[in-house]
Amino acid sequence: MYTNEELDNLAEFYKNQLINDTVPFWFPRSYDHEFGGYLLMRDSDGTLIDTDKAVWIQGRACWLLSTLYNTVEPRKEWLEGARLGYEFIKDKCFNSDGKMYFHVDREGNPIRMRRYFFSETFAVIASAAYAKASGSDEAAAFAREMFTVCLEYANGKRVMDPKFEDTRPSKGIGIPMIMCNTAQQLRETIGDPRCDEAIMSWIKEIEENFVKDDIRCVMEQVSLDGDIIDHIDGRTLNPGHAIEGAWFILHEAIYRGMDQHLIDLGLRMLDYMWERGWDEEHGGILYFRDVYNKPVQEYWQDMKFWWPQNETIIACLLAYLITKDEKYSTMHKLIHDYAYKHFHDSEHGEWFGYLHKDGSIAQTAKGNMFKGPFHLPRQEWYCWSVINKFKV
Amino acid sequence: MYTNEELDNLAEFYKNQLINDTVPFWFPRSYDHEFGGYLLMRDSDGTLIDTDKAVWIQGRACWLLSTLYNTVEPRKEWLEGARLGYEFIKDKCFNSDGKMYFHVDREGNPIRMRRYFFSETFAVIASAAYAKASGSDEAAAFAREMFTVCLEYANGKRVMDPKFEDTRPSKGIGIPMIMCNTAQQLRETIGDPRCDEAIMSWIKEIEENFVKDDIRCVMEQVSLDGDIIDHIDGRTLNPGHAIEGAWFILHEAIYRGMDQHLIDLGLRMLDYMWERGWDEEHGGILYFRDVYNKPVQEYWQDMKFWWPQNETIIACLLAYLITKDEKYSTMHKLIHDYAYKHFHDSEHGEWFGYLHKDGSIAQTAKGNMFKGPFHLPRQEWYCWSVINKFKV
Repeated sequence: MYTNEELDNLAEFYKNQLINDTVPFWFPRSYDHEFGGYLLMRDSDGTLIDTDKAVWIQGRACWLLSTLYNTVEPRKEWLEGARLGYEFIKDKCFNSDGKMYFHVDREGNPIRMRRYFFSETFAVIASAAYAKASGSDEAAAFAREMFTVCLEYANGKRVMDPKFEDTRPSKGIGIPMIMCNTAQQLRETIGDPRCDEAIMSWIKEIEENFVKDDIRCVMEQVSLDGDIIDHIDGRTLNPGHAIEGAWFILHEAIYRGMDQHLIDLGLRMLDYMWERGWDEEHGGILYFRDVYNKPVQEYWQDMKFWWPQNETIIACLLAYLITKDEKYSTMHKLIHDYAYKHFHDSEHGEWFGYLHKDGSIAQTAKGNMFKGPFHLPRQEWYCWSVINKFKV
Repeated sequence: MYTNEELDNLAEFYKNQLINDTVPFWFPRSYDHEFGGYLLMRDSDGTLIDTDKAVWIQGRACWLLSTLYNTVEPRKEWLEGARLGYEFIKDKCFNSDGKMYFHVDREGNPIRMRRYFFSETFAVIASAAYAKASGSDEAAAFAREMFTVCLEYANGKRVMDPKFEDTRPSKGIGIPMIMCNTAQQLRETIGDPRCDEAIMSWIKEIEENFVKDDIRCVMEQVSLDGDIIDHIDGRTLNPGHAIEGAWFILHEAIYRGMDQHLIDLGLRMLDYMWERGWDEEHGGILYFRDVYNKPVQEYWQDMKFWWPQNETIIACLLAYLITKDEKYSTMHKLIHDYAYKHFHDSEHGEWFGYLHKDGSIAQTAKGNMFKGPFHLPRQEWYCWSVINKFKV
C-alpha cells in the first residue's frame, strides 16, 4: 500500500522527471525552425542520427508540447513548438489523395506511405491538443475532420490496402485500442459529441472479441468472430500493448464515475497480461509471447522495449488508485523500480529504448522511426496528473 | 593452414552432419503426402508449430532434396520428396496474374502476397534441380520460364509495387546477389545460355556500386548511382549477406578457371565484412551494423542468426581453398567452431536459429517463415563438395 505521502512523492518524481529530464532531452534542440516539425532521430547523447521525420512521431511530439502547455504550465516555448508540428503535419504529410505518409524527409518530401492510418490518429490528438492550447478554430476543425477520416477507416467505409489475402480473415486489437484513446484525447481537449458512444463500442469489441477469460489472456489478433487463430501470427501476444489497452479502459471507467464493469475489465486485462509478460527472472515486460508458449516469429520477442514498461507503470498505478489493492501497488513498485533503474540514462536524460532480456543495453538510439517524445513523457505526465486527480 | 588430412576430415564432417543430422531433422517427417509440399514450421524437437507453408522455404526444400539426389546419392525418397515440392510450387503458389505468393496455408490457399520476387527465384533453383533429378522436360521448361520472369523483374521490365516514394531512389544488393546465385544454379543443373553474361553483369553492378574500397565496406543499399545514402536505412549493413555475395563471386571465379579479378573482389568483400560483422567479444557474425557505427533501426542487430554463420563458413573455406592463405583457415576455424558449438542442437539435430549476442538461445524454432532446410544443409553440402573439388 502507498501512503498519501508516498503518492505525493511519486507525483513529484514523475513531474520532475518529465520537466527536468525527459522534455529537456528533446526540446528546444529538436524544433526545426527552418522546415517546420521536429528533428527527433537522436542517439543517446542527443546527437542527430537522421534528419528524416517519422510522421507518427511528429504528431506525438506536437501532442506532448500542446498537452504540457494545456496542463502543466502555459509556456510560450511549448505553444510555439506545438505550432511547428501542427503546421508540418497539416502542410507536408499528406499525399494528393488525402492519405497521410508514414515517413518524410526533413523538408517534407515523401519517403514512405504505409497502409495503416496511425499517422491520421496521431494527427487527431496533436491537432486537438494544439487547438485547445492555441484557441485555433482551424486546428479544431482539422482535428474533427481527421477524426472523421479515422472513423471511416475503422468502420471500413474507407478501405486500407489489405496486407493478407481473404483465406483467413483476422482483425487486430490495435484499431479499437487506438481509436479509443484517440477519441478520449479529442473529447478531453476540444470535445466531440461522437466520442462517448464510439469509445464504448470499441471497448465492447475488445471485451467480446479479444479478452479470453477462460485462458486468462488478451489476444492481439483474432478471427472476425473473435476466435483464436492457431497459427504463428494469430497466437502471438503483445503484453505491453494489451496492458496499454487496459489503462485506456480504466481511464474510461474513471471518466464514467467509476464504472464497475469497466474497472473489472481493465483489471482483468492487466492481470492476465502481467502474468503473460512479466519476466520473473530479470523483471520488466517482455515484448512478445505465444499464447501456448510456442516460439513466435519475431526476433525481439524476449527484449525489453521502453514503451511496454511505460504502459505497465500507468496501468498498475491506475489499478492501485482505483482499488487501493496492495497487489497493484506491489506491481507498480516492481515495474517502476525496474524501468527507472534499467532504462533511464542518468548521464544524458530520457530513456534508452532497447534492452536485452537481461537488462543490458542493446542499442543506444533514443529517437528513430518508432521512438520519440511520447510513451515516456506521456507516462510521466499521466501518472503525475492522475495522482493529483485522485487526491481531490 | 589445413593439412590435406584436416581438409578430408572437414569434408567428412560436413557430409556426415548433412546426411545424419541435418536432413533427418526435416525428412521424412515433413513430406506432406496429403496436400503436397512440406510441413516445415517446427520447434527444436521437431514438433509442428504451424501447418502453413512459406513459399520461399518450399522452393528451397525442393532444391535441397533435388540437389542431394543429384550430387550425394540417387535416393528414391529424395526424388519423390522433391516432386512434392515442385508440384506444390507450380500448382498452388501463383495468383491469377502469375505472381507467386509469399505465404499459403497447408492446402495452398493464399495467405500473403509480397511485392518481392524471391518466391520466383527459389522456384527457379527448385525446378532446375528437380528437372535435372527427374529428367522432366516440363520442369526444365518451367525453370527457364521462371528465370525469364526473374530477369524481367530484375531489369525493370516487370514492375514491383514500390515500397518507397520517388524522393530518394535506392537499390539493394539483394537483387544482383540472388540473381547471380539463381543463374549459377540454373547453369550448373540444366544449363541456360543466358546465365554467363547475366552473372557477370550482376557482379559488375555489385563491384561498381556496392563495394566501397575507401572505407572497406560492402553497402546493403545505395543510391541509383552507387552513392551512400546517409540516412538510417541507407547506412545499415548486413555483413552476413554481403559475405554470402562474396562466396557467390568466389564460386564464379572458380567456374571461370580461377579468374583473378573475381578472386580479388570476393576476398575484399569477405575481408571488409568480417571486419564489420565479426563479434570480437563473443564470436560469430552480428546481424546489422551501421556504416558509421551509429544505431540502426532494427532490434535484432546484435543477435546471432544461423544463416550469416553458414554463409561465412562457406566464404572462409572457399577463400582458403583458393588462396591457401593461413588468414582464411584461421577465420574458417573461428567461425566453424563458434557456430557448431553454439547453434548445433546435439539432442535433436539441426541448428537453433536465433541466439542472443552472448550465444545464449533466444528462441527455439528450427522452422518458421524464414528458416527451413536451406542455409545449413546448403553450407554442409557446398563445403563437402568444394573440398572434394579442390582435391582433384
